[in-house]
Amino acid sequence: MKTISENRAFGGVQGVYSHASAVTGGEMTFGLFLPAEAEEGLVPVLWYLSGLTCTHENAMVKSGAQRWAAEVGIALVFPDTSPRGDDVPNDAAYDMGQGAGFYVNATQSPWDKNFRMWDYVTEELPRELFQAFPLAEAAQSITGHSMGGHGALTIAMSFPGRFRSVSAFAPICSPTTSDWGRKQLLAYLGPDEATWAAYDATLLMKKRGFDGPILIDQGTSDQFLDLLKPEALAGAMAERRQGGSFRMQKGYDHSYFFVSTFMEEHVAFHAGALNA
Amino acid sequence: MKTISENRAFGGVQGVYSHASAVTGGEMTFGLFLPAEAEEGLVPVLWYLSGLTCTHENAMVKSGAQRWAAEVGIALVFPDTSPRGDDVPNDAAYDMGQGAGFYVNATQSPWDKNFRMWDYVTEELPRELFQAFPLAEAAQSITGHSMGGHGALTIAMSFPGRFRSVSAFAPICSPTTSDWGRKQLLAYLGPDEATWAAYDATLLMKKRGFDGPILIDQGTSDQFLDLLKPEALAGAMAERRQGGSFRMQKGYDHSYFFVSTFMEEHVAFHAGALNA
Repeated sequence: MKTISENRAFGGVQGVYSHASAVTGGEMTFGLFLPAEAEEGLVPVLWYLSGLTCTHENAMVKSGAQRWAAEVGIALVFPDTSPRGDDVPNDAAYDMGQGAGFYVNATQSPWDKNFRMWDYVTEELPRELFQAFPLAEAAQSITGHSMGGHGALTIAMSFPGRFRSVSAFAPICSPTTSDWGRKQLLAYLGPDEATWAAYDATLLMKKRGFDGPILIDQGTSDQFLDLLKPEALAGAMAERRQGGSFRMQKGYDHSYFFVSTFMEEHVAFHAGALNA
Repeated sequence: MKTISENRAFGGVQGVYSHASAVTGGEMTFGLFLPAEAEEGLVPVLWYLSGLTCTHENAMVKSGAQRWAAEVGIALVFPDTSPRGDDVPNDAAYDMGQGAGFYVNATQSPWDKNFRMWDYVTEELPRELFQAFPLAEAAQSITGHSMGGHGALTIAMSFPGRFRSVSAFAPICSPTTSDWGRKQLLAYLGPDEATWAAYDATLLMKKRGFDGPILIDQGTSDQFLDLLKPEALAGAMAERRQGGSFRMQKGYDHSYFFVSTFMEEHVAFHAGALNA
């Protein structure tokens, strides 16, 4: 584990670290905020998965989450959104390849060698984190924005019991029926759409749901509403009688101004579930 | 006045606008956060002046100030740090030319035509702002970071009665004796050091002081302490018996993690002075 930077922030430490990743076949970078309480013992963890084009850094510098995490003594993990590097496949489009891992395990060439973000975020990075830092494995929650909201929801529903709560900001709700999804799932997973279903929050909601509280915020002026398809997930939640809040926030768009506006409530929501 | 972007944020609007500037001879861009209260009437204004290399955008996306300004119904203005453009003089160094206006009126060629940031920030931009937006001219305060802290302090002391309060994050305290200052003042103002004194917070503190509350935060692990010279201004404040707080914050560095950590207290401090 290499330390790239550590900055004191809100009484704790905002660090950036990198490590060799066997799963993605290269060096991976992530951000980790440790509140002051981490000096005394294990602290709960809130995972934040970022959206298209983001690195580990965007939410770390723009979401304002540390302020609220510090208040309740919770750590924040900011993984990258894909493998990186000159020897890692890429695509000229902003929504494919580097910066657009979509939190799946690719099975198709040339992506299958490196683009295994599902295993990276759910297996390898947790293992590394819980070994290296004072984090409470039994007290985890997860959130994310856009593509990261898709990641948070699908991962939370796929690992029952691991996450106490899940939330999302403007998540991609229905990738198997959206241009934010079909293109990438075809490239990463191939044409058999049966393999796509494990990565679709709406389909997982219909099939499994989530055994814990859910909070979703979506701006009504989001420029990507047609791609995000909130109606699919909101409908599935209501249909399943899934406990949770799906809030349409009037006038907000897809930017980090939207995320930072509601971050306080999301962190407080998770803190409640984490007894923090 | 051109609207570049407007995003809903914290119940208000974070806008970015540009306008033709006679003072700097080109188009200037600034950020303006208007809280929800601006829909009903005039709101107080807190100016935020940024540091070296910054544009109007850095503090706008990284300081977290909007959250606190929204809470107390205060507007935030984020000016750029210099004129910009291909036809504006520049320098290869990060600390000269574009992004490094130092909040002075340059008198030396080639800078004197465009680099008049003192007049821009204290005359032209206020005039434009108070004409175009619901801002209360009688309720202004000012803050800034690094070079912007220098700007905030020198401007506040030079316009008695205009600002109710002044604060700064890791300000350049003594530019006439520091490598963050001497090089730029020589280039912009020429070799007569008597002309530099109007742009030095420590010298202005000794000569005039400020008729209102002052709050200064400085990290003890700031990598630029030798250039910032907090001891010069802290000493001058104590010597003058100037009311105010000069706080050395243990372990914090020069980054926006430091700024965002203490932003809540700075906005609350100004809100008190602005009766907001």
